[in-house]
Amino acid sequence: MSKSQIVIEEFHSQSLEGNPLNDPVVRRVPVYLPPGYDASQRYPTVYLLAAFAARGLKLLNDDIWQENIQERLDRLISIGEIQSMIVVMPDASTRYGGSQYLNSSATGRYEDAILELVQYIDAKYATHQEADQRAVMGHSSGGYGALRLGMRHTDTFGLVAAHAPDLYFEMVYQKDIPHFLQFLEKAGEEGLRALLDDPGAALAKGASFYALAICAMAACYSPNPESPWGFDLPFDTFTAEVVPEVWALWQSHDPIHMAANHAQALRSLKLLYLDCGLYDEENLLYGARILSKRFNDLHIAHHYEEFEGGHRNTRFRFDVSLKMISSSINY
Amino acid sequence: MSKSQIVIEEFHSQSLEGNPLNDPVVRRVPVYLPPGYDASQRYPTVYLLAAFAARGLKLLNDDIWQENIQERLDRLISIGEIQSMIVVMPDASTRYGGSQYLNSSATGRYEDAILELVQYIDAKYATHQEADQRAVMGHSSGGYGALRLGMRHTDTFGLVAAHAPDLYFEMVYQKDIPHFLQFLEKAGEEGLRALLDDPGAALAKGASFYALAICAMAACYSPNPESPWGFDLPFDTFTAEVVPEVWALWQSHDPIHMAANHAQALRSLKLLYLDCGLYDEENLLYGARILSKRFNDLHIAHHYEEFEGGHRNTRFRFDVSLKMISSSINY
Amino acid sequence: MSKSQIVIEEFHSQSLEGNPLNDPVVRRVPVYLPPGYDASQRYPTVYLLAAFAARGLKLLNDDIWQENIQERLDRLISIGEIQSMIVVMPDASTRYGGSQYLNSSATGRYEDAILELVQYIDAKYATHQEADQRAVMGHSSGGYGALRLGMRHTDTFGLVAAHAPDLYFEMVYQKDIPHFLQFLEKAGEEGLRALLDDPGAALAKGASFYALAICAMAACYSPNPESPWGFDLPFDTFTAEVVPEVWALWQSHDPIHMAANHAQALRSLKLLYLDCGLYDEENLLYGARILSKRFNDLHIAHHYEEFEGGHRNTRFRFDVSLKMISSSINY
Amino acid sequence: MSKSQIVIEEFHSQSLEGNPLNDPVVRRVPVYLPPGYDASQRYPTVYLLAAFAARGLKLLNDDIWQENIQERLDRLISIGEIQSMIVVMPDASTRYGGSQYLNSSATGRYEDAILELVQYIDAKYATHQEADQRAVMGHSSGGYGALRLGMRHTDTFGLVAAHAPDLYFEMVYQKDIPHFLQFLEKAGEEGLRALLDDPGAALAKGASFYALAICAMAACYSPNPESPWGFDLPFDTFTAEVVPEVWALWQSHDPIHMAANHAQALRSLKLLYLDCGLYDEENLLYGARILSKRFNDLHIAHHYEEFEGGHRNTRFRFDVSLKMISSSINY
Repeated sequence: MSKSQIVIEEFHSQSLEGNPLNDPVVRRVPVYLPPGYDASQRYPTVYLLAAFAARGLKLLNDDIWQENIQERLDRLISIGEIQSMIVVMPDASTRYGGSQYLNSSATGRYEDAILELVQYIDAKYATHQEADQRAVMGHSSGGYGALRLGMRHTDTFGLVAAHAPDLYFEMVYQKDIPHFLQFLEKAGEEGLRALLDDPGAALAKGASFYALAICAMAACYSPNPESPWGFDLPFDTFTAEVVPEVWALWQSHDPIHMAANHAQALRSLKLLYLDCGLYDEENLLYGARILSKRFNDLHIAHHYEEFEGGHRNTRFRFDVSLKMISSSINY
Repeated sequence: MSKSQIVIEEFHSQSLEGNPLNDPVVRRVPVYLPPGYDASQRYPTVYLLAAFAARGLKLLNDDIWQENIQERLDRLISIGEIQSMIVVMPDASTRYGGSQYLNSSATGRYEDAILELVQYIDAKYATHQEADQRAVMGHSSGGYGALRLGMRHTDTFGLVAAHAPDLYFEMVYQKDIPHFLQFLEKAGEEGLRALLDDPGAALAKGASFYALAICAMAACYSPNPESPWGFDLPFDTFTAEVVPEVWALWQSHDPIHMAANHAQALRSLKLLYLDCGLYDEENLLYGARILSKRFNDLHIAHHYEEFEGGHRNTRFRFDVSLKMISSSINY
Repeated sequence: MSKSQIVIEEFHSQSLEGNPLNDPVVRRVPVYLPPGYDASQRYPTVYLLAAFAARGLKLLNDDIWQENIQERLDRLISIGEIQSMIVVMPDASTRYGGSQYLNSSATGRYEDAILELVQYIDAKYATHQEADQRAVMGHSSGGYGALRLGMRHTDTFGLVAAHAPDLYFEMVYQKDIPHFLQFLEKAGEEGLRALLDDPGAALAKGASFYALAICAMAACYSPNPESPWGFDLPFDTFTAEVVPEVWALWQSHDPIHMAANHAQALRSLKLLYLDCGLYDEENLLYGARILSKRFNDLHIAHHYEEFEGGHRNTRFRFDVSLKMISSSINY
Repeated sequence: MSKSQIVIEEFHSQSLEGNPLNDPVVRRVPVYLPPGYDASQRYPTVYLLAAFAARGLKLLNDDIWQENIQERLDRLISIGEIQSMIVVMPDASTRYGGSQYLNSSATGRYEDAILELVQYIDAKYATHQEADQRAVMGHSSGGYGALRLGMRHTDTFGLVAAHAPDLYFEMVYQKDIPHFLQFLEKAGEEGLRALLDDPGAALAKGASFYALAICAMAACYSPNPESPWGFDLPFDTFTAEVVPEVWALWQSHDPIHMAANHAQALRSLKLLYLDCGLYDEENLLYGARILSKRFNDLHIAHHYEEFEGGHRNTRFRFDVSLKMISSSINY
C-alpha cells in the first residue's frame, strides 16, 4: 500500500483578491492523503486550523519531542485508532498574525476563503461531500476558528473540535492592554506603525508581541476603514478605558456570546468537542468552562475535557479529538 | 524650640467594637507634633492614610534610602516648605490586610472609626477644627481612602491628596482573578480558609498574596453576612465569570463612578490633588488619567501629575502633596 | 514590673570617622531593655544584625502580619521561652546599602565599629561582659555578619545564629552579574555614577537594584583605593569574565572558605546555629548546606535547620534562634 | 532552470549503531540543492547545524514572519548575494535534546556521525571535496558544534560560522543549576527518571526544561558509564557545590578553553565568523566577546559582530554568515 503523502496545494483564493494588507492571494495549503489513498473511493475530510501567528504549514513543523501531523495521522491510522482521512491545513494568516478565520475589512475575507477552499478540495480530491463527513478543528485561534466556522456553516462542517480556543475575551485579551499601552508610550505611533508594517523585523529587535496581538485582534473584531489604522481599538490609548461600542463588537465575536444565536446549528452537529489545559497560561481554562456551561444551558450536546498541561506543547491532544471525529463519522 | 515628637495614641475605637474579624478595638495611632508644638496655638491637621497591608505605624518605618515621615516633615518645616502641622496616621488595617477606609459588615466600621478618630484628636490636640484646615491624604489604598473620605465628608476634610490611588477597578483588580483561581485550584477551600485565618503564617509558607488581596477587597466592597466567607466574590470560582450584581457593588465603590454623585462635594474642596507614576506596576496610571478626565468633565478643579517612577519607593512624592496642602491652607 | 523599652542610642563611632563615603559617624542604635530591667543586675546581650539595605532601626518596623522585634521579645520573655535579655540593633549600613560588617577602605571600618559598640553598650548597660553571655545573630547579610564576627571575635561573641546568611558566593552573587552588565550597557558610566551617588533617587526611577548590590559587595570584598570607583569588580565589565585575583578576594570572605581557618574559634562557640528556607529565592539554601557540611567535616558542633519558606517574611525564625541562644546561656 | 529542491536523505549512520539511548540509527537529513543543480558540476557545501532540542528538519520549519532556509537560500542566490551551494542539515539530536555534535559514551558518536555524513554526501552529490569549499555553521548549540567541528577537523571544514554559540559555560549553564535542584527537590529521582525517559510527555505536563537541559549537557560533557544516569553532574545534587573534576571536563569542552589548543587549526580556516545579539537572553554575549578576545590574543583572524536582537527569531543573521561564506570561497 502506498505511503501517506503531503501535497502542498498552491491555492489561489478569489476571496483574498484585493485584500487590504496586500497579503498573498495564493496560499500554500498542505493536504494529507492517507496511506493507500485511492481516488476511486471517498474519504472524510478534516480541516485543521493553525493558531495565531501560524499557517497550515506550521502543523508539519518538526519537533524532536512531538510527532508532526503526518507522523501522528500515520500512526493513528496504522493502529486502527482512526479511519483513513484527508486532512487539509489552510493558511488564513495575515501580516499581523492571523485572521481569526473571519471576514474583515481590515484584513480580508478569510471566512469566505475557507469555504472556497472546501470547494477547491472537494473538486480535486476524493472526498465525501456531506457535512457529516467533514470536520473542522484547531488549537487556540485555530480552535476559535473551528467553533466559529462550525456554528455558522453547519451545511459545510458537521463536526467541530476546539482545543483551548480563544474564549471569554474579557479574560484573554484585556490582560494585554497594559502591555500595549506601555509599548505605545515608549515606541510612540511611529514605533507602532513600524511594528504593523514589518512585524518580523520589529519583533526580532524586541518589539512587544502583545502590542501586535492586540492590533491583530482589533483588525479582526473591530475593523474600521475610516480609521488611520484600519481598525478601532476597544480601549482609549491614553486612559485604557474600554470603548463600549467597540468592545461590544469584540464580544459579538466571542463564542460565549455567539452560542445562543447559533444554538440550533450547534445542536445539529454530529460532534462538538472542547478541551483546555488545567494550567493554560493564557487563562483559557475559564472561557472553556463557561462555554461548556452555556452549551449545557442551551441543551447543546458536546464533549468537554480538562487535561494536565498548559497552552503549549499540546499536540498530543489531537489524538483525542481525531479519534472522536473518526468514531463519529459513519464508515 | 522643642523637637518634633511622635506620640503613639492608644485609640479605643467604639466604632470597631464587636467587629466581625475580632480585630483589635484599640489601635495605636502615631501623631506627629511639629517642632515647638504649643498647645495654646492651633495647627492644621493632616490624616495620612496607610496603604493596603499596612497601618499608620508603617509610615514611621525605617528605610535607609528614604526619609521616614518624621524626618520628612521635620525637613520640610525647617526649610519653610510647609507650615507647622499635626499629622495623624490612623490604623484601619484588618486581618485580611485593609479596610479601604469604609464600613463593611465583613470587616467593621472603619469609615466611622476615622471620623471618630478626628473627634478624639481634636479633643486632645491643638487643632484648627475647620474642614479647610484638615487634610486627608495617602498612597495606594491610602490614596483611595483619601478620595473616598474626602468626597463623602467635606464637612470634616477640606483638602485631599491621593497618590496612585486604587481606581478603575477593572484594570486593577481583575488581573488578580486568575491568580486567585489557580491558588484555589491547588490549595482548595481549606487552603483558602487557612490563608484567611492566619495570613501571616500562610504567606510565609508561600500562599498567594493575590488570593488574599482579592478576598480582602471583597470583604470591603461586597460583604455578605449570609455567605460562609462573609463576603461575595465578584466572579464565579469555577469559571471566572463576572457576577454582574456583585461587580456592580464593587464599581459603586470605584471613585471613577463615585465622582459624579459627589461632584458638588468635590468642587467644594480647597485642594484636590492626584498623581501616579508613569511605570506604575499595578496599572494605576490609567485609572488616574480617567479620574482626572472625569473631574474635568464635571468641572471639578484639581491638580494632576504624572511622574517618572513606579508604584513603590515613592515616598518622595509626599513632599509635593504636603507642600500643596500647606500652601492651600490659610495661615 | 516596668514594661520593656526601646532606647535609641545616638552612638558616635570613632571607627567611622573619616569614612570614605561620608556616611554618618553618629548612628542611631535601638537597644531593647527587657521588662523590669534593673541596672543592678546583669543581662545577657544579643546583637541582632540587619540585612543588606537596612539598619537596626528596620527591625522595629511595623508589619501587620509579623511582630516587630519588641513585640516578639516581650512575648517570648513573658511566656518563659527566653530569659530576660538586652538586644542591640546596630547600624552598619552605607550609602550603597551595607558594609557586610567588615572593614573596607571603600566603605569604612564597620567591623571595628561593632566591637566599639559592644564596649559602649557594656559601659552603659547592665550587661554580663563575658563572651558566653553575648550572642550575635542576623538574617541574610545580617546572618553573614553574625558568622563573620562570631568566628573572628570569640572573645567578644560566644554564641552565633545565622539565618539564611550570604554563603557560597558563586551561587549568590554571580547570578547578578548579567543584570549589572545590562544596566551598564544601557545607563553607561554616568548612569552607574548616578546610582552610586544617590541610590534612593536612582532606584525610585527604576535603576537596577542588582547593579547597586554588586557594587556594594565589591566595596566590601574587593576595595581598591586606586580604582576610580573605590573598588574592583570581580568580573570584566565588557566580557563578564571573572577576574581571578579579585574573585579570590571575594572568596576569602565567604564563610565556606573562612571556616577552615577559623575552625578552632568556631569549635569554641557555645552555640552555632544556622538555618535556611527550602524555597530561598536567593539560592542561599545550597550555601547553608555546604557550610553545615564543612562544619561537620571540621568537627564543629552546630545546629542546622531547613524550614518551609522563602527568603522574606521569615521573622518567625527568630523565635527558634532566640530560644536556642537563651537556653545555651547559663542563667 | 530547475527550482531548488529539498531532498530528505535517509542517512543510516554506522557511527550511531548501538548508541546507548537507543536513538535512531537512520536519520532524516534535508539536503538543499540549488536552482539548476547540475550533477556534472561541483558545488560548495554548507553544513548547517540545528540548535539544542532540534534537528536539521527544524530549519525547514514554517514561520509566518521569517523565511525558512529554502526560501532564504533561494532569495540570496537569485539576487546574487551568494553563489549556488548545497546545504546539508544534519540530525544530531538525542532523546535528551542534543549531542553538542560530539562523541560521548552517554549519547553516542555524533562527531563521527557528522564526518561520516560528509562522506555520504560527497559520494552522492556533486560537491567540491576540498575543505576550503566546505563550511560548517549554526546557531546556539549549532554554533557550538560549528566551532567545535571546525577547529577539530580543518581537513574537512575550511569555513566556520557560529551564531550565538554556547560559550563561557560558567555564565551559560550554571544559572540553570538552581532550577535543576528545585525540580529534583519536588519531583524526586523518579520524577527525574520520568523526565529523562520521555521528555516530551514530561515537559507537556510541566516538567522543568532546565532540569532536562542540564542533564543533556552532562551526557555530552561528562558521560560516565558507571553512573546510574550514564553521566556525572558537575555539581552536588544536595549542596549545588561544583564538583571540580567534573566541571573541569565541562570546561575542556568550552571553546574558550579549546581555542588555545587549536590555535593553529583555527588560523588555517578560510573564514571564522562569530556573532551574538546584544540582548541575548541566555547571556551568550559575554562568551562571544571572550572568544573574540581569545582569538585576537592568539592571532586568529575572524569576523565578530554584535547586533540588535536577542537569542530567538534571529534567522535573519544567516544572511550575513552565508554571504561571508560565499564570498570567502573561491569560485
